[in-house]
Amino acid sequence: MKTLIKNGTVVNSTGTALADVLIDGETIAAVLSPGSRLLGFDVESNVDTVIDARGKYVIPGGIDAHTHMEMPFGGTQASDTFETGTRAAAWGGTTSIVDFVVQYAGENVIDQYQKWHEKAAGQCAIDYGFHQILSDVQDSSLTAMDELVAEGVSSFKLFMAYKGVFLSDDGQIVKAMQRAATNGSIIMMHAENGSVIDLLVQQAVAAGNTSPLYHGLTRPWQAEEEATHRAIMLANLTGAPLYIVHVSAKQAVDQIAQARDTGQNVFGETCPQYLYLSLEDNLGAPGFEGAKWVCSTPLRAKAEGHQHHMWQSLRTNDIQMVSTDHCPFCMKGQKDMGLADFSKIPNGIGSVEHRMDLLYQGVVDGKISLERWVEVCSTTPARMFGMYGRKGVIQPGADGDVVVYDPNGHTSIGMPETGRAKTHHMNMDYSAWEGYEIDGHVDTVLSRGKVVIDQNAYLGAKGDGRFIKRGLSQYLI
Amino acid sequence: MKTLIKNGTVVNSTGTALADVLIDGETIAAVLSPGSRLLGFDVESNVDTVIDARGKYVIPGGIDAHTHMEMPFGGTQASDTFETGTRAAAWGGTTSIVDFVVQYAGENVIDQYQKWHEKAAGQCAIDYGFHQILSDVQDSSLTAMDELVAEGVSSFKLFMAYKGVFLSDDGQIVKAMQRAATNGSIIMMHAENGSVIDLLVQQAVAAGNTSPLYHGLTRPWQAEEEATHRAIMLANLTGAPLYIVHVSAKQAVDQIAQARDTGQNVFGETCPQYLYLSLEDNLGAPGFEGAKWVCSTPLRAKAEGHQHHMWQSLRTNDIQMVSTDHCPFCMKGQKDMGLADFSKIPNGIGSVEHRMDLLYQGVVDGKISLERWVEVCSTTPARMFGMYGRKGVIQPGADGDVVVYDPNGHTSIGMPETGRAKTHHMNMDYSAWEGYEIDGHVDTVLSRGKVVIDQNAYLGAKGDGRFIKRGLSQYLI
Amino acid sequence: MKTLIKNGTVVNSTGTALADVLIDGETIAAVLSPGSRLLGFDVESNVDTVIDARGKYVIPGGIDAHTHMEMPFGGTQASDTFETGTRAAAWGGTTSIVDFVVQYAGENVIDQYQKWHEKAAGQCAIDYGFHQILSDVQDSSLTAMDELVAEGVSSFKLFMAYKGVFLSDDGQIVKAMQRAATNGSIIMMHAENGSVIDLLVQQAVAAGNTSPLYHGLTRPWQAEEEATHRAIMLANLTGAPLYIVHVSAKQAVDQIAQARDTGQNVFGETCPQYLYLSLEDNLGAPGFEGAKWVCSTPLRAKAEGHQHHMWQSLRTNDIQMVSTDHCPFCMKGQKDMGLADFSKIPNGIGSVEHRMDLLYQGVVDGKISLERWVEVCSTTPARMFGMYGRKGVIQPGADGDVVVYDPNGHTSIGMPETGRAKTHHMNMDYSAWEGYEIDGHVDTVLSRGKVVIDQNAYLGAKGDGRFIKRGLSQYLI
Amino acid sequence: MKTLIKNGTVVNSTGTALADVLIDGETIAAVLSPGSRLLGFDVESNVDTVIDARGKYVIPGGIDAHTHMEMPFGGTQASDTFETGTRAAAWGGTTSIVDFVVQYAGENVIDQYQKWHEKAAGQCAIDYGFHQILSDVQDSSLTAMDELVAEGVSSFKLFMAYKGVFLSDDGQIVKAMQRAATNGSIIMMHAENGSVIDLLVQQAVAAGNTSPLYHGLTRPWQAEEEATHRAIMLANLTGAPLYIVHVSAKQAVDQIAQARDTGQNVFGETCPQYLYLSLEDNLGAPGFEGAKWVCSTPLRAKAEGHQHHMWQSLRTNDIQMVSTDHCPFCMKGQKDMGLADFSKIPNGIGSVEHRMDLLYQGVVDGKISLERWVEVCSTTPARMFGMYGRKGVIQPGADGDVVVYDPNGHTSIGMPETGRAKTHHMNMDYSAWEGYEIDGHVDTVLSRGKVVIDQNAYLGAKGDGRFIKRGLSQYLI
Repeated sequence: MKTLIKNGTVVNSTGTALADVLIDGETIAAVLSPGSRLLGFDVESNVDTVIDARGKYVIPGGIDAHTHMEMPFGGTQASDTFETGTRAAAWGGTTSIVDFVVQYAGENVIDQYQKWHEKAAGQCAIDYGFHQILSDVQDSSLTAMDELVAEGVSSFKLFMAYKGVFLSDDGQIVKAMQRAATNGSIIMMHAENGSVIDLLVQQAVAAGNTSPLYHGLTRPWQAEEEATHRAIMLANLTGAPLYIVHVSAKQAVDQIAQARDTGQNVFGETCPQYLYLSLEDNLGAPGFEGAKWVCSTPLRAKAEGHQHHMWQSLRTNDIQMVSTDHCPFCMKGQKDMGLADFSKIPNGIGSVEHRMDLLYQGVVDGKISLERWVEVCSTTPARMFGMYGRKGVIQPGADGDVVVYDPNGHTSIGMPETGRAKTHHMNMDYSAWEGYEIDGHVDTVLSRGKVVIDQNAYLGAKGDGRFIKRGLSQYLI
Repeated sequence: MKTLIKNGTVVNSTGTALADVLIDGETIAAVLSPGSRLLGFDVESNVDTVIDARGKYVIPGGIDAHTHMEMPFGGTQASDTFETGTRAAAWGGTTSIVDFVVQYAGENVIDQYQKWHEKAAGQCAIDYGFHQILSDVQDSSLTAMDELVAEGVSSFKLFMAYKGVFLSDDGQIVKAMQRAATNGSIIMMHAENGSVIDLLVQQAVAAGNTSPLYHGLTRPWQAEEEATHRAIMLANLTGAPLYIVHVSAKQAVDQIAQARDTGQNVFGETCPQYLYLSLEDNLGAPGFEGAKWVCSTPLRAKAEGHQHHMWQSLRTNDIQMVSTDHCPFCMKGQKDMGLADFSKIPNGIGSVEHRMDLLYQGVVDGKISLERWVEVCSTTPARMFGMYGRKGVIQPGADGDVVVYDPNGHTSIGMPETGRAKTHHMNMDYSAWEGYEIDGHVDTVLSRGKVVIDQNAYLGAKGDGRFIKRGLSQYLI
Repeated sequence: MKTLIKNGTVVNSTGTALADVLIDGETIAAVLSPGSRLLGFDVESNVDTVIDARGKYVIPGGIDAHTHMEMPFGGTQASDTFETGTRAAAWGGTTSIVDFVVQYAGENVIDQYQKWHEKAAGQCAIDYGFHQILSDVQDSSLTAMDELVAEGVSSFKLFMAYKGVFLSDDGQIVKAMQRAATNGSIIMMHAENGSVIDLLVQQAVAAGNTSPLYHGLTRPWQAEEEATHRAIMLANLTGAPLYIVHVSAKQAVDQIAQARDTGQNVFGETCPQYLYLSLEDNLGAPGFEGAKWVCSTPLRAKAEGHQHHMWQSLRTNDIQMVSTDHCPFCMKGQKDMGLADFSKIPNGIGSVEHRMDLLYQGVVDGKISLERWVEVCSTTPARMFGMYGRKGVIQPGADGDVVVYDPNGHTSIGMPETGRAKTHHMNMDYSAWEGYEIDGHVDTVLSRGKVVIDQNAYLGAKGDGRFIKRGLSQYLI
Repeated sequence: MKTLIKNGTVVNSTGTALADVLIDGETIAAVLSPGSRLLGFDVESNVDTVIDARGKYVIPGGIDAHTHMEMPFGGTQASDTFETGTRAAAWGGTTSIVDFVVQYAGENVIDQYQKWHEKAAGQCAIDYGFHQILSDVQDSSLTAMDELVAEGVSSFKLFMAYKGVFLSDDGQIVKAMQRAATNGSIIMMHAENGSVIDLLVQQAVAAGNTSPLYHGLTRPWQAEEEATHRAIMLANLTGAPLYIVHVSAKQAVDQIAQARDTGQNVFGETCPQYLYLSLEDNLGAPGFEGAKWVCSTPLRAKAEGHQHHMWQSLRTNDIQMVSTDHCPFCMKGQKDMGLADFSKIPNGIGSVEHRMDLLYQGVVDGKISLERWVEVCSTTPARMFGMYGRKGVIQPGADGDVVVYDPNGHTSIGMPETGRAKTHHMNMDYSAWEGYEIDGHVDTVLSRGKVVIDQNAYLGAKGDGRFIKRGLSQYLI
């Protein structure tokens, strides 16, 4: 299959070019001056498919480096399977995800890693890679780290919260970091002080403060700032590179910025929810409504200026990239486990389908530039997690993961509750983004050269997606 | 003329690709998967010239955004003409310069601008653009700013030093910045406190401290840090974007980094001399030798750690790009005007030929990554000064400004004084870089599709270079 | 004359003591446990006067280290003479002032110094010292600095604003600082960027923006922050201690705090107006009313949080002391010179009478502690300007400058405009503090042992006050 | 007993006064102008004892707010009893200590508090107060906090290190801080990350790195900086005041300084060992010698500049006071428990006798001023821990705790190992300060009016010292 995307504006992370993109099989074969001819040779006549992208942006497919498909958590599991979740991602212009292999305390890392391969194999609509979660950092986990790097899993996530579930203590974190410093991998961190949060939650519940708002109030910014600083210091001690996931507090951003100013390899990721949603407007919604937006780190108080600071930091590269932390749970049967006690609400928001749109709206609103959009959604994730060259860029030799995005199109995110039909394709009975209007539209999505989304139709198939064997982070010098 | 550069490693600012580059006439027509065929069409057989770049880097031509060809200064003028200087640039893999139109107090900006066009027209080996120097900021200068933006001159340089020659007072700076904030241009600043320096110079000379070392000692880091902060505050007040030229003090870097952390559009440029040379080793050389390295801002004390900090800041993007501040003067007949008084030594170092090599050595030495080399030497200068798309990137539609760089080659910078033949092509009777050995080599240089350097020979001609009509900076959102 | 102040709570800068204070002649002779007996000796029976201070605070007399009595400025002069101004000070519990000898460009420093002695001699109600203003920093001014230190004038003030009147350029400032670094004196700085302000004023007036509010809008915080940083850097370069007068912008405070964190001897003074008044509420008052509060640095925008930051910085010692910058002008015949053009309004506010009360209200309001009140209003000024031991403390050997302050008393600041009689004693036809209510009262004031205020009556006489020959600052190690 | 100390220079924390001090019974009755007469009354003839302090400093007795007399630790106990330790303190000019009541996990706070009273009662040479250590923060501990505040124990110490012995987890710390925020007490913190240190120790021992130097290398500055920041954030969250004990790393100082700049009530204490001793010179001494200086936090690397930074911070009040952390162990029978494994060496240094001298040497060396010496050694400890008025100042009503210090005297700290007789009075078989020479001498020490040290003799008795019922910290507004 040979495909020519002609007349579009190719956007990469440093700027734009009017150019045609030729995909031969699964791979980009050439980027050409528009006109469909090369030295007299008629390119257009020699391809199978021609996509006219005039007036549209042609961008490398989105990479969502933080998803939790069918993750077991708190007696239930995230409502999107690898099948439904990756299909929804494709709908939204995302052509790669990196999902998390879970290892709970006592479990064996390599066993878990194999289980996750079994879950995902043959199910995905788009390509997928894995990060490995480490909880108790057994000796066997350390040797597994080396093995996994060789397998293409070069990033390891630890938690400073969720005691008895995920939490690693500081000594365990140091052990994992020491290993990362020697094998070239990168440490990802859920940076919240679990010990403090557990106390505040227990005190809130004991005081009868059980509504979803208290999810936010019991995870104050100090708990995030503190853990972020701690993680940075442990990384400083060991020499490991550090990537802080789902940063939501401006004070945590400042810790990252300060560390970066000293030359330390520290990176920060934020998520669409921290750019748009808030404690007051969402977590504090009447009744149990706020449960829709229970996720950790929590939504922050708008009045404190976190959103503004986050957009600015995204622009100035104090925050480097945007993932979703996609971890969907339905209101019925899942979120409602916490009706009487917010601490029982499964933590997570589903956004894998909307990230590219929501961030493009930031371009329209003047928050970030067009090229920064591509950078934070695709190029940087690719470089950060060792996929660049194949992913994250439109250049010869790269996978044919391309999105044609129409700046004159429009995307409404609707649900019956606002009197409209459900528009999303994630396996969720509500939308965290209901009512959002986007001044742009994902027109066509190609995954390794195959058109999987076009004219508002899904043309792909379960199993199209393949495992991405990743290299080391390309940001470490 | 159609040229194919095949089998090379194309390096851009985010990474590399194995790809062929096809140049048709003056413009890059395509970037293709290596193999010289496209959908069966034999590309190689349809071009005039084939350059085999196997094992070599194929990079966008260097852009030196800070040169002073034949600049009149202190009764003499910089020893490189537009002819000799741009030819030397080409030898070193630089395919564009942005030079400074000088306006001294009392002169008319537009008149000066036209004089500079006359000087450069028909002389240059490579493309050239202009920044405009403003000194006394007359009312006519403000209207000239708007006219010049339309002419493709979108950057204006002011000086906080050199009273009676270049210096603008703070009110004048604010006036120029106010205009820049409305017309989209960018303010470049020579940030040193001239009033303080003039006093220290006068005191040093009065005390009989007349050797070149005192050039450095009378321009202390405080004078640079102070002026940098002041420029940032004036920019903050007016909303103008600000670009600090030739940053040498680590404390000045910190001011820039702090301002950037707040989201202000402040940028910093450094030069090779601040990355490699020092007060102790160079300015402090025996006798009058130090005169070779008299430039402003001055070389800083190695013992204070400026060099290390500068490399780090270049890596972390607290400093965004590297220019040369090329302003050569011969020792005989020029620098020796200051034999009895360092303050009479014309200020300037010639490096336009060596920048690409010297920075590549930073890659070899592990200071910056390969892609960061391309970014700081080409891509960022292009974006910063409104040339990106035509310059600074290898993509269809861009000018055929391409350098084939051999990482297995070697470049020695020699002069008779070290018992070797003169190796450089700048019009200077000494080299500031004598004895430097580079683990790489500029093999082939194309300027708008024409091979101008190949096999250690200059194949271009006077007048090859054309004026670059620049747009606005592409960094301002 | 022997006086016993009995049963009071003596407050010093570290805490309180229940103690009697015995003054013998002009000097404190003893501080004793209450009870009026010492080893059986009946103290009370052996004194001339007994003041019962039960339930009241006994504090060292206030020291206002920044006043401008009868200062010539803009064709008029400050409306308080040394006679009226010092008498008003006494009413308010201030027993020492340090006033400024003015030297305009071209004038001789020593001549001016002598003129000021002539003005003050025999006029003052309380003791007075002098700071010396330097404007053009002639060679003779530098030698005068040494002479004046010997005379008891150990502090020199320079201005970074008021071009053609007071302004010293940076080279001149450095010259004065170099001298201060050798003779042990301290440099005081009016830190505002005059060049920028002059431009903004000219632009505002040209645009017809002539009301008092524009006084504030044309002196933005950036102009103060910038000059503060610049002064700090020049001090850093020369090694001179630096004291920033009338700090009003929180960003300027931060510059001072940062410099202090590095160990540099930098100090900051604020004034009551920056703790209570604002751009919106006062400068922006309807019509020409705002002229009452035209002073420089200007009142800052309440919305930007300067007031809160200033109180906090006063508490945490990032700001060390509070003076008034007392420089009164009447509305009629003085302030009204600027009816058509705010830039013609004489700059100044009169507060010398109210400082102790206004700051005590900060104690009542929980902003600072009782001992901090004494420290910022008396002890620190004494130590800062070389008077401690004689002034600023209640201990044997100190001058009998003592205030009995009643925390259960009340002080209203009234004027006819609010339907009340004029309550103040400054020579002003309005009050900047009209309507302020203070939860405390200056009951009794002793100056060198003589009761000058008691039972709301002035008991002193013109000429009571003597010149204070000051030593070097006691803060410089 | 009535005592007159005549003709001395009384030093308090803001400056000096030539004055006589009269002590009547246990209390200072008056501070008088020198001359021994008051209104004709001959004071000198009416007292029992006259001490001539001409040419000497008369200062409030030293307060060592951090001692561990006979503390049980690691199977042994600190070698000084309350008897020997407080007597040694008196020898060194310290007239009050605040010692720590130990509560190990599982023990009852009030029980322990009573035990400590039993240990100290009737034993002490000088007055003593208690801080209470909390380890596991039981519910009963929280109510005990309130009770202890009423008892005069208004400060509670927690540990972030020593797991299984002292360590409180972050949730427990928050619980204690919440209580402190309501009852007005202050939280003291041993700020080192125990989890990280335990790992590093285990790795070092496993690698055969067992010498005393590894005590320092396994407690890196990052562990201290991190825990300091964490403690600050937990205090920020809860509103509790925070006092960091024994700060040794400059990076920890910077955390404290930053928090203070924001107005948070955070304080820092350092100890003489961090001002004079180092990792290289002491911990790294040959053989097992380094064991003498095994204490936690550890001595820091001289090459990293901690000592210089600490003296500077002490001068600028980024560090507020100096205690000893006196916790002596003998080399024979105690320190030698760690001959084969540094982690078995009891942690502690004995300095209670030398603090006043060592800090006075800082005055001689120009590091701090004379008044700052008194402030950091006496006045601030008194204010910090609710004793001011009775302790920490020379004023009527204060306890007669006075030291006559001779700036022309000399003190040698000797031990047989340097060929001299043992000079100290602490119950230790070595001295951490052997060979130190002090340019000053403790001549006379009075404790509550009784001369306990004079002419190099101890004149006091066991049981002279009484329990100090402390109030709340006087620094909290």
